[in-house]
Amino acid sequence: MDIYIAKGAGFCFGVKRAVNIAFKTAERSVKRVATLGPIIHNPQVVDKLSEAGVKPLDKVSEDVDILIVRTHGIPVELYESLRDAKFELIDATCPFVKKAQQYAKLLREEGYQVLILGDKDHPEVKGILSYAGESAIVVRDAGEMPMLNSRVGIVVQTTQPVEALKKLLEKVIQTVKEVKVYNTICNSTALRLRETEDMTRKVDLMLVVGGKNSANTKQLVTLCNDCRVKTYHVETAGDLFPKWFDGVEKVGITAGASTPDWIINDIVRKIEAIGERACTSRGRES
Amino acid sequence: MDIYIAKGAGFCFGVKRAVNIAFKTAERSVKRVATLGPIIHNPQVVDKLSEAGVKPLDKVSEDVDILIVRTHGIPVELYESLRDAKFELIDATCPFVKKAQQYAKLLREEGYQVLILGDKDHPEVKGILSYAGESAIVVRDAGEMPMLNSRVGIVVQTTQPVEALKKLLEKVIQTVKEVKVYNTICNSTALRLRETEDMTRKVDLMLVVGGKNSANTKQLVTLCNDCRVKTYHVETAGDLFPKWFDGVEKVGITAGASTPDWIINDIVRKIEAIGERACTSRGRES
Repeated sequence: MDIYIAKGAGFCFGVKRAVNIAFKTAERSVKRVATLGPIIHNPQVVDKLSEAGVKPLDKVSEDVDILIVRTHGIPVELYESLRDAKFELIDATCPFVKKAQQYAKLLREEGYQVLILGDKDHPEVKGILSYAGESAIVVRDAGEMPMLNSRVGIVVQTTQPVEALKKLLEKVIQTVKEVKVYNTICNSTALRLRETEDMTRKVDLMLVVGGKNSANTKQLVTLCNDCRVKTYHVETAGDLFPKWFDGVEKVGITAGASTPDWIINDIVRKIEAIGERACTSRGRES
Repeated sequence: MDIYIAKGAGFCFGVKRAVNIAFKTAERSVKRVATLGPIIHNPQVVDKLSEAGVKPLDKVSEDVDILIVRTHGIPVELYESLRDAKFELIDATCPFVKKAQQYAKLLREEGYQVLILGDKDHPEVKGILSYAGESAIVVRDAGEMPMLNSRVGIVVQTTQPVEALKKLLEKVIQTVKEVKVYNTICNSTALRLRETEDMTRKVDLMLVVGGKNSANTKQLVTLCNDCRVKTYHVETAGDLFPKWFDGVEKVGITAGASTPDWIINDIVRKIEAIGERACTSRGRES
């Protein structure tokens, strides 16, 4: 059995940065460190951080010495209020998400109605929306387009597929005379989706590794299903069943932006143990 | 034989305005009136104007009392130089073309690389390009896309189909991070194309009426051919052949923005004379 791992699989720049910040903060001799919500959408990483002393909080508490803002960012009103708190505030918002927030603000200041392409329930989108002004609208896709003003500014949840943005633009440009778009989709998302799609054409089975609560991981699952390849979404090596691999010659692995390398490596080792012969090539033929 | 005439066929707002300006100027008791190039791309209208005393000039001449700038507009350098000339200058540039010129200028001033979707040899596009700065590029369609800067501003030749703009945007948004679009396609163009496309599904034969030098008329011909309906491009009733109508039950007529009503009416009368029974409905079932 050959195992292929997609090039863009696993931690993106923003996640790597945030997790590093959290572990480095844990190393400081401060007793009470917390993140506001899970730092990333991966339960295993959140557990490891908890063991290191960095607990995720559901809501703001004054019972901490350091509070870390997670990769997805937070709404501007909350951010402003936290700056006056007694505890130290460390901002681990992904720089690309930060950019999307600033572009939303800029578009609002320039008088555009801001249109955000993304999932309105996702914390990243909630954060961006808070910068976008009262007339702002969030749409999940081009299908649910409401009436728009004559000047529309678009920003995009960083983990959206570029195809969704193209479809949105197609729709918007039909009725809106002035459209300003900041394509805030991050490059690693685009790369990960492209590599995963290419991989589905070469393998018998796809494993998508990542948190069940991770939007970009779920997007990879949807993509693989759309490409009509047998696909399983797993969080850890413990989720694998040997019978999945019966008759499988080539297995592809991709992973969400919040999936750490050690989980991917565990999964590779488990598959190697399952298969009689296994040849692992990472980022070569993917 | 039933004859249908598309709703948006014939003179658009800008053409009507320019032709009115020219005829009204001819009525003034001034001896030497001229247009710089044909006022619109319709030889019959240009001939009528010539008879009324308004001649088209190939290039600027001081031997006139009044010079009229045509619907398509002219490059900014030429415009500036004409303002200091001894003759009176009357600007009959279509207000929508004027807007496209001003948006190109604005985009340039805001630091965008201006991308113009249109025909680089068309006078309207040459005019817009002159406002767009040195880094500006004209593309006929999404297929011929060059390398672009990171901030791109788009304006469109007013008579382009919106489908072409959608395809361009799809391509541009793949690589460019900031895109500002002014959809300068005029509504009457969009309406004319839509009505014409709808009509092709209902008729056995399409007649596209307009100057052989009219870009938007040629675009209608292309559209009809793409819709796989038998199509003829005619300038006047004199171009019609009775045998075209053998076995035809339903004939559709559409016309470019520079085609006057009297030519369309001539054509309807000629078809009525050819057909045994003819029932003309304008803008009803189209």
